[in-house]
Amino acid sequence: MNTILDGMRVVEGSAFVAAPLAGMTLAQLGADVIRFDRLQGGLDAERWPITADGRSLFWAGLNKGKRSLAVDMTTPEGREILTRLICGPGPDAGIFLTNLRLRGWMSYEGLKQHRADLIMMAVLGDRHGGPQVDYTVNPAVGFPHATGPEGSLEPVGHALPAWDCITGQQAAMAIIAADRHRRKTGQGQLMELALKDTALAMLGNLGIIAEASINGHDRPKMGNSLYGAYAQDFICQDGARVMVVALTDRQWRNLKTATQSDADMDQLAHRLGTDLGQEGMRFIHRHAITALLKPFFEERSLGEVATCLSAADVTWSQYRSFRQAVQEDPDCSLDNPMFAMVNQAGIGSYLTPGSPINFMGLERLPPAPAPTLGQHTQEILTEIGFSNTEIAGLHDKKIVASPR
Amino acid sequence: MNTILDGMRVVEGSAFVAAPLAGMTLAQLGADVIRFDRLQGGLDAERWPITADGRSLFWAGLNKGKRSLAVDMTTPEGREILTRLICGPGPDAGIFLTNLRLRGWMSYEGLKQHRADLIMMAVLGDRHGGPQVDYTVNPAVGFPHATGPEGSLEPVGHALPAWDCITGQQAAMAIIAADRHRRKTGQGQLMELALKDTALAMLGNLGIIAEASINGHDRPKMGNSLYGAYAQDFICQDGARVMVVALTDRQWRNLKTATQSDADMDQLAHRLGTDLGQEGMRFIHRHAITALLKPFFEERSLGEVATCLSAADVTWSQYRSFRQAVQEDPDCSLDNPMFAMVNQAGIGSYLTPGSPINFMGLERLPPAPAPTLGQHTQEILTEIGFSNTEIAGLHDKKIVASPR
Repeated sequence: MNTILDGMRVVEGSAFVAAPLAGMTLAQLGADVIRFDRLQGGLDAERWPITADGRSLFWAGLNKGKRSLAVDMTTPEGREILTRLICGPGPDAGIFLTNLRLRGWMSYEGLKQHRADLIMMAVLGDRHGGPQVDYTVNPAVGFPHATGPEGSLEPVGHALPAWDCITGQQAAMAIIAADRHRRKTGQGQLMELALKDTALAMLGNLGIIAEASINGHDRPKMGNSLYGAYAQDFICQDGARVMVVALTDRQWRNLKTATQSDADMDQLAHRLGTDLGQEGMRFIHRHAITALLKPFFEERSLGEVATCLSAADVTWSQYRSFRQAVQEDPDCSLDNPMFAMVNQAGIGSYLTPGSPINFMGLERLPPAPAPTLGQHTQEILTEIGFSNTEIAGLHDKKIVASPR
Repeated sequence: MNTILDGMRVVEGSAFVAAPLAGMTLAQLGADVIRFDRLQGGLDAERWPITADGRSLFWAGLNKGKRSLAVDMTTPEGREILTRLICGPGPDAGIFLTNLRLRGWMSYEGLKQHRADLIMMAVLGDRHGGPQVDYTVNPAVGFPHATGPEGSLEPVGHALPAWDCITGQQAAMAIIAADRHRRKTGQGQLMELALKDTALAMLGNLGIIAEASINGHDRPKMGNSLYGAYAQDFICQDGARVMVVALTDRQWRNLKTATQSDADMDQLAHRLGTDLGQEGMRFIHRHAITALLKPFFEERSLGEVATCLSAADVTWSQYRSFRQAVQEDPDCSLDNPMFAMVNQAGIGSYLTPGSPINFMGLERLPPAPAPTLGQHTQEILTEIGFSNTEIAGLHDKKIVASPR
C-alpha cells in the first residue's frame, strides 16, 4: 500500500508518551517503526489504564503499527544487534528516536561511528538532561494557576498530558525534516527536544511571556470562559451542559440569533456604555452577557437548545464524559473513517484510531494493533543478516526473546 | 544561513491558533512562510492578550518569522495574485496551508488547475467542515469532566488550547511529509486535518477509548494526582507548592530517599497488605502515601525541600504563575539558547522563543519578529513577477496594501 512516508525506517528506544507517540505517529504515516525493549518490557509496559487482568491499554494505544524487538541491551551481543539495526544501510534507514538515558555506545557519538549520516532524535525532560515529565513541566510553566474556577487559588493540573502530546508531534516532524535535509545534503545529525522547552516555547507563542513581561500581568483563572473573547458553558433544563463560543463577529451574531437576544444585547451594551461587537469587550463584560443568556438555556432541554444553536450555525458543543463521548458521539464511532475496530492481542477488539491526517491523494492507512513484546524479533534479526542458527543461539542465551 | 527546511516555501491563509502555529513552526525551521490577510488584517488580528494600546501579543507570538502580504481577496486581481503565489513555480513551492472556508477559486480543485502537484493542508473544525474550535472540542471529548478536584462534579476547561497546539504541529508535519512524497513521486495532494479528529485520535492513543469500552469505566477527577501511578502536589512551610512524580521504580526509590520515608513506606505497605513497588498500587493508595509524606513538606521551606529532592534526583518542580515562571525560571530567560530578546514593531522588546527543536548539525535559527500587516507586500509581488508600475497600480486600487 502506498503511504506518505513510504520506505522510511525508524528505530525507537522509548517509554511513556512523547517518544512512543512520535514513533506511532510515523508508523501511522507508513514508516516502518521498530521499537526495541528489554526482555521484560519497557518502563511503560504496565502503565495505566490497564484491563482487569493487568494489560496496559496505554501501551497498546501508543505503540500501534510498530514492530517489536525484545533484546537485552546490557549484553555485548544485544548492543551489536541494536547498533546494526539503528545504523542499517539504505537512504531510508539510519533514524533513531529515543528518550532513554544515552550513554556510551547508545550515544550519538557512539552510534555515529557506525553510520556517519545517522539521524537521531533525543527527547529530553529539560534542556539540561534533567528528569522532567509532563506533570512537573505543567506546574513549572504556570498553567495550573490559570486553570479552574474564577477566584479560586487552588492550582489545577491538566488530565491530558498536553506537553507530551505536542512534543511527540514535534519529534515526528523533526525526523521527517531531518530526512529531507539528509536527502538534500547527505548530512545526518543529532536533534534534541526537551519537554520543558516545548512548553516554554508555547508560552511564548501564545503571547503569555509577552503578557507577563510587557503588561506585567498575571492571567487569572476564569473558569470555563475563554480569555479575551466570549465563550461560556451553560446548563440546560435537563441538566445537560453545553459550551458556546463567540470569538469572531460571525460567531457572535449567530449566537445572538440563536438565542434571540439581539435586542437585549443592544440594551445591555447601551447600559454598559460599550460595544459588544468588540471581542475584548465581550470578554470584559462576560458575566453580564452570561446572565442575560442563562434563561435561554435553563428553559430548554438539550434537544431544544441543540436545534436552535445548530440552525444558526453557532460554534458549540455538548459536555460529555469520556464514556459518553465513546458511547454517543458519531465522530467517535465507525461512522468516522479515522476509526476501525482493531483486535489487540490479549485485550480484545475495540474502536481504534488511525492518523487524524487524511492524505487524500492516498488510500487511508487503517489502524494496526500494537505488537506483543518481541513479536517481530525473529523477522527483524533475519532482515539485518542473522542466520536462523544464530537467532536460535541468541534466544538460547536469552539475549533476545520472542513470544511463546 | 543553512536551515533544516532550506528552500521550502509555504503560503498561509489562516487565523487563530492551529494553522498559524503550523506556519510559524515551519518558518522557525527555515521555510519561507508567507501569510496573506485582508487589508484590515485577519480575524485574529486583535486577539487577546493585547497591550495597553490594543496590539495583539497573541498575533505577534503566532506569526513570528513569516512574511506578510495584505491583499483584498474579494477582487479578481487579488485572486490572481494569490493563485500565482500559491501555485508558484519550483519544486519547493506550491504548498498552501489554510483554515479558511474554502470555496470556488481557493478550493483545492480550483487551485489544482494552476498547479497539478499542489500540496494543500486544510485545517478543519470537525471532519464535516463544521465550526468547532479548541474550546468546544475539549468538552465534547471528555477532558473537563476528568479535570479538577477529586469528588467535584464541575467540569473544568483547560487554559492551554492543547488541541490547537497539537493540530498545529501535525499540520506542519503533514506538509513536510507531503513534500517528501512529492519529491519521490511527483504527486501533490489535498490533506485534511480536523481539530476534533486530533482530539479523538489522542483519546484512543492514550488508552481512554479502550478504557471506556473494554473496562466500561469512566475516569474520575483526581485533583493533581497522576492517574495510575504516584504524583502529588505538596505545600511547603513557606506556602510554596511543589509537584513530585514517582512513575518509575527509580523515581519512587528516589522520592523515598529524599523524604527519608523508606521505613515508613514499608510499614504502610505492610499495614495495607500491598506492594507499593507497583505503580498501580501507589495510585490506589495515593492518599495514604500523601498523608505520610505531607509533614516532610510542611516542616521545610521550599529551599530545604528543593535541596533534599534535587540531591536524590527526584522528578519534581515548583508551581509558578506565568509571571513567576517568566521572572524566576532560568529556563525561561536568555540563559536558555532557545530564547532571544526580539523587538516586535509597535510593542517593544521581549523574550521570544525560537523552535524548541535543536538541530545540532546546524546553527540554531534565532527567533524573528512577526511581520507588520503587509510588510512584505511589495517584495512578494516583485518576486512573483509584478512590475513596480503594476504594484503601484494595485496599491492605488486598494487591492494590496503596505504599511505607511
